[in-house]
Amino acid sequence: MGTEIERKFLLASDAWRSSVERSISMVQVYLAYTPHSQVRLRRTGDKAYLTVKGAKTGISRAEIETEVPPSFADEILEAGLYALNPVVKTRHLVPVAGHVFEIDEYAEANAGLVVAELELPAEDTPHPRPDWLGDQISDDPRYANLALAESPFTTWR
Amino acid sequence: MGTEIERKFLLASDAWRSSVERSISMVQVYLAYTPHSQVRLRRTGDKAYLTVKGAKTGISRAEIETEVPPSFADEILEAGLYALNPVVKTRHLVPVAGHVFEIDEYAEANAGLVVAELELPAEDTPHPRPDWLGDQISDDPRYANLALAESPFTTWR
Repeated sequence: MGTEIERKFLLASDAWRSSVERSISMVQVYLAYTPHSQVRLRRTGDKAYLTVKGAKTGISRAEIETEVPPSFADEILEAGLYALNPVVKTRHLVPVAGHVFEIDEYAEANAGLVVAELELPAEDTPHPRPDWLGDQISDDPRYANLALAESPFTTWR
Repeated sequence: MGTEIERKFLLASDAWRSSVERSISMVQVYLAYTPHSQVRLRRTGDKAYLTVKGAKTGISRAEIETEVPPSFADEILEAGLYALNPVVKTRHLVPVAGHVFEIDEYAEANAGLVVAELELPAEDTPHPRPDWLGDQISDDPRYANLALAESPFTTWR
């Protein structure tokens, strides 16, 4: 089983855009969830992934993922057989000093929201802090993807 | 998307055992669920299947399934990354007059429970009623597999 350890930040500026290595469009839906586990389906390019995540402890959580046939994902999306709102975003990969920031630019119900994520091998791993990196929001539950599916950014306030 | 239409019965006797064509051991867990959808993982032999089911309407429900790597299923089971109790059973396939009854003999927390299921192309499709077939329980919510994961047979009463 993998453990996902992830720090999340807002962006202080758009300066990261000049360092984008690759951008990937994706749609994520939650097939179901309980307080203890979430089942997420991600459709991107010609691939689809199913991810089971456990409850979050600090900035870590158990995560087990498998590739699934794109046709399976498309059937689920067409049938609307999922909970909450789909989360639609473009993920920009931005390498900085041996780390890769994943900068998620959300669309549709979460349009206007841009978040940088950094996966780390341990909770105390030091990491670069480029000028464009804004406030850390790792502990803010509103920015969790499940929360964005439930209460999208455009409905805040 | 498939639609599962299924009738469920108790057994009036053990006479079906002489007609078993094949028996398959399986473990099922629910990865997560909401009132509107369930995500079930089934591990059997050298295969594993992930099934997303919608809410039940009468004896029908939407169902979309895909095969997943057995190693993915084993990781989930080892990590305990699922909700409720695992449902452990042996499924016996019993052909009768062009139909195949799936007779589920439950074990562990549901030991003692035996249920015959019959998938039908339509809700009003006629089907054979061999002598060993007992009362129909299609509408009894206690026998749903999710219910058996939540309130196992050995804990009834």
